[in-house]
Amino acid sequence: MTARSSLTIVLAAGEGTRMRSSLPKVLHPVASQSLLAHVLAAAPQGTGTSLAVVIGPDHHAVAEEARRIRPDALTFVQADRLGTANAVLAARDAIARGVDDLLIAFGDTPLISAETFARLRAPLAKGAAIAALGFRAADPTGYGRFIVEGDRLVAIREQADASAEERKIDLCNAGVMAIDGRRALAILERIGNTNSKGEYYLTDAVGIVGEQGWESVVIETSEDEVRGINTKAQLAEAEAVMQARLRKAAMEAGVTLIAPETVHLAADTVFGKDVTIEPFVVIGPGVSIADGTVIHSFSHIVQTTLGKNVSIGPYARLRPGTTLGDGAKIGNFVETKAATLEAGVKVNHLSYVGDATIGANSNIGAGTITCNYDGFKKHKTVIGKGAFVGTNSSLVAPVKIGDGAYIGSGSVITRDVPDDAMALERNQQTIREGGATRYREMKTGGKKLETKPEK
Amino acid sequence: MTARSSLTIVLAAGEGTRMRSSLPKVLHPVASQSLLAHVLAAAPQGTGTSLAVVIGPDHHAVAEEARRIRPDALTFVQADRLGTANAVLAARDAIARGVDDLLIAFGDTPLISAETFARLRAPLAKGAAIAALGFRAADPTGYGRFIVEGDRLVAIREQADASAEERKIDLCNAGVMAIDGRRALAILERIGNTNSKGEYYLTDAVGIVGEQGWESVVIETSEDEVRGINTKAQLAEAEAVMQARLRKAAMEAGVTLIAPETVHLAADTVFGKDVTIEPFVVIGPGVSIADGTVIHSFSHIVQTTLGKNVSIGPYARLRPGTTLGDGAKIGNFVETKAATLEAGVKVNHLSYVGDATIGANSNIGAGTITCNYDGFKKHKTVIGKGAFVGTNSSLVAPVKIGDGAYIGSGSVITRDVPDDAMALERNQQTIREGGATRYREMKTGGKKLETKPEK
Amino acid sequence: MTARSSLTIVLAAGEGTRMRSSLPKVLHPVASQSLLAHVLAAAPQGTGTSLAVVIGPDHHAVAEEARRIRPDALTFVQADRLGTANAVLAARDAIARGVDDLLIAFGDTPLISAETFARLRAPLAKGAAIAALGFRAADPTGYGRFIVEGDRLVAIREQADASAEERKIDLCNAGVMAIDGRRALAILERIGNTNSKGEYYLTDAVGIVGEQGWESVVIETSEDEVRGINTKAQLAEAEAVMQARLRKAAMEAGVTLIAPETVHLAADTVFGKDVTIEPFVVIGPGVSIADGTVIHSFSHIVQTTLGKNVSIGPYARLRPGTTLGDGAKIGNFVETKAATLEAGVKVNHLSYVGDATIGANSNIGAGTITCNYDGFKKHKTVIGKGAFVGTNSSLVAPVKIGDGAYIGSGSVITRDVPDDAMALERNQQTIREGGATRYREMKTGGKKLETKPEK
Repeated sequence: MTARSSLTIVLAAGEGTRMRSSLPKVLHPVASQSLLAHVLAAAPQGTGTSLAVVIGPDHHAVAEEARRIRPDALTFVQADRLGTANAVLAARDAIARGVDDLLIAFGDTPLISAETFARLRAPLAKGAAIAALGFRAADPTGYGRFIVEGDRLVAIREQADASAEERKIDLCNAGVMAIDGRRALAILERIGNTNSKGEYYLTDAVGIVGEQGWESVVIETSEDEVRGINTKAQLAEAEAVMQARLRKAAMEAGVTLIAPETVHLAADTVFGKDVTIEPFVVIGPGVSIADGTVIHSFSHIVQTTLGKNVSIGPYARLRPGTTLGDGAKIGNFVETKAATLEAGVKVNHLSYVGDATIGANSNIGAGTITCNYDGFKKHKTVIGKGAFVGTNSSLVAPVKIGDGAYIGSGSVITRDVPDDAMALERNQQTIREGGATRYREMKTGGKKLETKPEK
Repeated sequence: MTARSSLTIVLAAGEGTRMRSSLPKVLHPVASQSLLAHVLAAAPQGTGTSLAVVIGPDHHAVAEEARRIRPDALTFVQADRLGTANAVLAARDAIARGVDDLLIAFGDTPLISAETFARLRAPLAKGAAIAALGFRAADPTGYGRFIVEGDRLVAIREQADASAEERKIDLCNAGVMAIDGRRALAILERIGNTNSKGEYYLTDAVGIVGEQGWESVVIETSEDEVRGINTKAQLAEAEAVMQARLRKAAMEAGVTLIAPETVHLAADTVFGKDVTIEPFVVIGPGVSIADGTVIHSFSHIVQTTLGKNVSIGPYARLRPGTTLGDGAKIGNFVETKAATLEAGVKVNHLSYVGDATIGANSNIGAGTITCNYDGFKKHKTVIGKGAFVGTNSSLVAPVKIGDGAYIGSGSVITRDVPDDAMALERNQQTIREGGATRYREMKTGGKKLETKPEK
Repeated sequence: MTARSSLTIVLAAGEGTRMRSSLPKVLHPVASQSLLAHVLAAAPQGTGTSLAVVIGPDHHAVAEEARRIRPDALTFVQADRLGTANAVLAARDAIARGVDDLLIAFGDTPLISAETFARLRAPLAKGAAIAALGFRAADPTGYGRFIVEGDRLVAIREQADASAEERKIDLCNAGVMAIDGRRALAILERIGNTNSKGEYYLTDAVGIVGEQGWESVVIETSEDEVRGINTKAQLAEAEAVMQARLRKAAMEAGVTLIAPETVHLAADTVFGKDVTIEPFVVIGPGVSIADGTVIHSFSHIVQTTLGKNVSIGPYARLRPGTTLGDGAKIGNFVETKAATLEAGVKVNHLSYVGDATIGANSNIGAGTITCNYDGFKKHKTVIGKGAFVGTNSSLVAPVKIGDGAYIGSGSVITRDVPDDAMALERNQQTIREGGATRYREMKTGGKKLETKPEK
C-alpha cells in the first residue's frame, strides 16, 4: 500500500472570551505546551502530510506558534465567523491542492491522540467519504447526536432539532472529521446557511454525502480525548488529564514517583532508568534526566540536561541552559542559569550560578554568587577543574578561576585566579575583648546584659 | 418593602474537646480565617442587622475575634451547658430588644452562605414563625429528622425517638433556624427540659409553634454547607471544600491555576485580570494581586499587595507589609517583610529585604541582606531610585542609599550613601601563586593533589 | 493461656523485574521504610517469636535490611524459582526447629497489619491446620478463588482451573497463610509439582490438609491490605494508602493538617499535642515533634528532634542530626545538619548551620554560613549562649564563638571569639562621590544615566 497523502486543517480562530484573558485561547499551555502545539503534535507528520491552521484576524502569535511547531504549516485567516464549514473553507487554497485525506481538527482539544487521527483516516482508504469522530457522553445534553444505521452515519442532529427519542442517543459529535480529499471541496461547497443563525455548519456534510450515495462512518473515542477548552476551569481539567497520562507513562518506564499527583511534568520530559522524583517537583519544558538521577522535593527545573547519578535539591531551581555532568550535585536553595557544570561538581547550598562553566569535581561553597550582571550587561564566570570556592564568595564576572584554585571564604573575586593559586579578599579579624558587653550597655543604658534573638 | 431588621445569634460556646487542642474550637482557621469569622461574614450585615455571639466561660479570645470581625457584635456567656435553647437564651437581652428576624447559627459551620441566611428569612416575611434549615443526608443516622406535612414542618424527631419509618427520612435538621423576632422570646421560654438529659432543646420550638397554630417551614440546603466541625479531620475536610470553592471562583474570574488542587488560597484573596498562579503556592490572608501578575511555584505570600505585571518566585516568601509596584520582580529564595518596593524593582536571588523601602527601578543583587535587627531593635533601610546593590551586600540599618547609587559586591554598608555615589567595603584581592597546591600538601601530607567536593 | 510460639517466613526472593529498577523489589520504600520493613514490623514480635526471610541469590542487601529491622532474623536463599511452596521450604531448617504457629507472608505487601497476623493465628490455637487470608476482590479475575463449605476452606482454585460458576466467587486468595507449626513440614513436603509449570504451589496445602481430615479456615481482610507491589504505579498506590493512614492517625491524635493530602509523613513520625503542619511539607524518617510546634509550608525534615513550641520554615530544610530546643526558630531558606540548637535559638533567614552547636537564645543573622568543609574534612562550629552573629557572616570551622559574643556583619571568623567579645572582619567603607555616575558613563559612553535592573 502506498502511503496516502494528508492535509490536516486545525481550526484555531476562536477568541476564547470565556477564558477572560488577552492571550488567544489556543496559546494557553497544558503541560508546558500550547493547546495548539498538542494538536499539531498529534496530527499526521512526515512525508506526504501537510498542515493548515485557520486563525482569527490579528492572531499573529497563533500563526507564529504554528510555524514554531511545524515550520511547513500554512495559516489562513477566517475573516468572518460564519460557522465551522466557513472556517474550513478559509483554507480552500490548501484543500484545492488535492490530497487523499482531509482531516479537520480543533486547536482547543489538546488531548487528541495521533492514533485517533490514524483511525479516522482508515475508512477513507476503504472508500468512505467521511469518517466522523464520536464519543459516548456522560451527559449528552447540548451535543450534536450521531444518527446511525448499522455502521453508517446518517446524520448529525443538533440538540435543538433532535426528537425526544433522538435526545436519548449518547453517541455525540466530537466535531473532528476526516473527509476524502478528492471529494472534499465538492462536499464543503454544497454546505448552505439556511438555518436560524445563518451560519455554515460542517455537520451538514454528512447529509450531503448521503445524498450523493456516498458513505459516512463513525469512529468512536473517549469523551476525555475530545473535550474542548473554553474556560480556565476546563484548562485546568485538561492539564490534570495530561499530567495523569505523563505520570503513568513515566512510572511505566520505571521512574519512581513517590507521590505522583504532586509531580508536575512537561509533555517533552525525557527520563533515563532508575530515576527517582520526590514529592512536590515542577518540571518545565526541555528537561532530560539520565539514569540513576534523583530529583529531591521542591525542585523546579526548566530547559536543563541532567547527567547520570545526579542529585538535585531539595529546593533546587535549575533555569534554562543548565547542563549537569554525571554525578554532579545541586543542593538546597541553589539557582543555576545558562550554566554548564561538569561531572562531579557540587554546589550544595544557597548559591547562584549563572552564565558560568565549572570544571569537573570543583566544589562551590555555600553562599557563593556569580555576579553576572553589572547593571548593563551579563558576563561569564569560568571555573576550572578541581577548584574550591569558599563560602559567601562573590565571583565578579567576567572572571576566570583556574584549575585547582582555592578561594578563601567571604572573598570578592574581581581578578582572574591562576591554576592552583589561592585567592583571598579579606581583612584581619579584629577581636575587641568585652566589646559585646559594652555594646549591650550602650544599647540598653546598662540595664540588660543579653541581646535578644530576633522574633 | 421596608428592609426587615435582624438579630443573628451565633452559638460558639463549645469546648471542642475532640479537637484535642487548647484553642477554642471556633477559633481554628479555615482558608486563613477562623470558623467564627466565616459564619459572621455570612450573617446579615449592614443597617438594621445586629449580632450576638454566645461564648463559653473564659473564652475571651472568642469574644475578641467576634469584635474584630464585627465591632458591633454583642457577646454573652453561657454559664451552664444546658442545651441549645439555653444557649440561645443566654442572649435574652439582645432578643428582648425586638427585631423582625431572629437567626440562630453555629460558630462551627464555616461553610454556610449569606444566601442561605437570606433564604431562611424569606418565609418569616410571609408570616411563618419558624424557618428551619434542613439537608438531605447521605447517611441520616444520628441526625434529627424533619417530619413534614406538605410544606409545613410538623416536628423534629431525634434519632432515639424516631420510629423505624421515621428513621428512613433523609431530610435532617441542620440546627440553623430563623424565628419570627416578635414571637421568639415567647416561643423560646416555653421550651422545657423534661427529657432524659434534662436539657433545653431548640428543636422543641417547632412543636410549640405548632401548638399555637403558627407555621414552621423547611428551607433545604446541601449537606456540605452545614457540616459542623468537631475534629481535626473535619476541619481539614471543611478546608478542602472551602479551597475548592475559592479556586473555582478564581478560575471563573479568569485566574489561570495550572494545578488548582495545589494552590492554597485565603478567603479574602483579591485577583486582577490575567493573573497566573503556578503549582504549589500558598496565599495567606490579606493578599491583593493586580492584573497580569504571575506567581511562580513554591511561593508563600501573606498580607501583601502586588501591582500589575509583577513576577514572584519561584520560592518567594512575601511576609506581612510587603507592597510591590508595577513590574517589580521578586526571584528565588527571596524574603520580604514590611517592605515597599516601587515599580520595576528587581530582587532576583537569595535576599532578605525587611523594614525597607526601595525606589523605582533599583536592582538588588543576589545575596543582599538588610540587617534590620541589631540585637535589640528593628531599623529601616531606605534605598533610592535606580540604585544598584552588588551581590552579597549587607546593608546595616538604619541606613540610606541614595538615588542612582552603586554598592560594590560584598560590602557591609554602615554609613549613608549619597545619590549617584559608589560605595565599597572591600580589601585588595590577594593571589598566592601555588597557594592552593601548598594548602593541599599541608592538609594531606603531600599525598593528594586535589581537594574533594563536599558530599 | 500460654503464649504460642511463632515463626514468620517472609518470602522476598522476587526479582521484581516489572519495577524496572536495579534495586531488589522489597527494598523500595513506602513512607520512608522499605516494603520489607513494613512487613517485618507487622509480623509477631517479642518472646517466642522468630522470623525467617527467604531471599534471592545475591540479594545481600535484602538480608542486611532484614537484620537491620530484626537483628534475630534468619535468612535463607531460594536457589531456584520453583513456586511458593519451594520458597517456604528454603527455610526448612527454621521450620524444623518446631513452633506452634507458622506464618507465611510476602515481602511486597507493605500494608498488612499486625492485627491480621493475630487474627490468622487464632484458629490454629483452636485446632485448625491452616488459616488462609482472603479478600473480596472488586475484580476477582486472575486471582485464586476460595472454595468454602460453611466456615471451612475446601480448596483454592486458580483462575485457569475454575469453572464458570467458580469464577463468580469474589473471595480471593491473598497468599498469606498460617499453618499449624507441628504439622507444617508434613504438609509442605507433600506438595507436588505435577502441574503445567512444574512448580510447587503453597495453595495445594489446603487440599492436603483436607485429605488428612484436618481443617482449613478463611480469615477475611480488605483488598487494600494485601495488595502486592509489582510496578512503580502500584508502589505509588501503596504509598498513597499508607500516607492516608498516617495522616488520619495524626489528625486523630490532634495534629492540625491544614491540607492533609499535601503533607508527606514517614511511618515513624512522632507527634506531640497541638502540633500544626501547613500545606506542602515533607517529613522523612526519624522525626519527633514536641507539643505546640508549627511546621510551616515547604519544609523538609529528616532525622530531627524538635522541642516544644518550635517554629520551622517556611522553606526550612532540617537534615539528619538536627536537634532543636524549646522555642527555637528556623526561618526561611535555612538548612541545618548535625546541629544542636538549644532553647530559644533563632536562625531566621538564608543560613546554613552544619556540624554545629548553638547555645540558648543566640541569634544567627541572615546569610550566616558555617564553613564546615575545608576541601578535605568536616569541622565543628561551637557557638555559646546569647551570642549574636551578624548577617552574611562566614564561621570557618573549627571555630568557637563564646557566650554573649557579637560578630559584626559580613565577617569571616577564623579565630575563636571569647565570651562577651565583639569580633569583626571588615574594612573601612569607602564612598566615591559621583562614582556611580562615572561608572555609568564609562559603561555607556556617557549615553545613559541609569543602570537597568536585571531581567
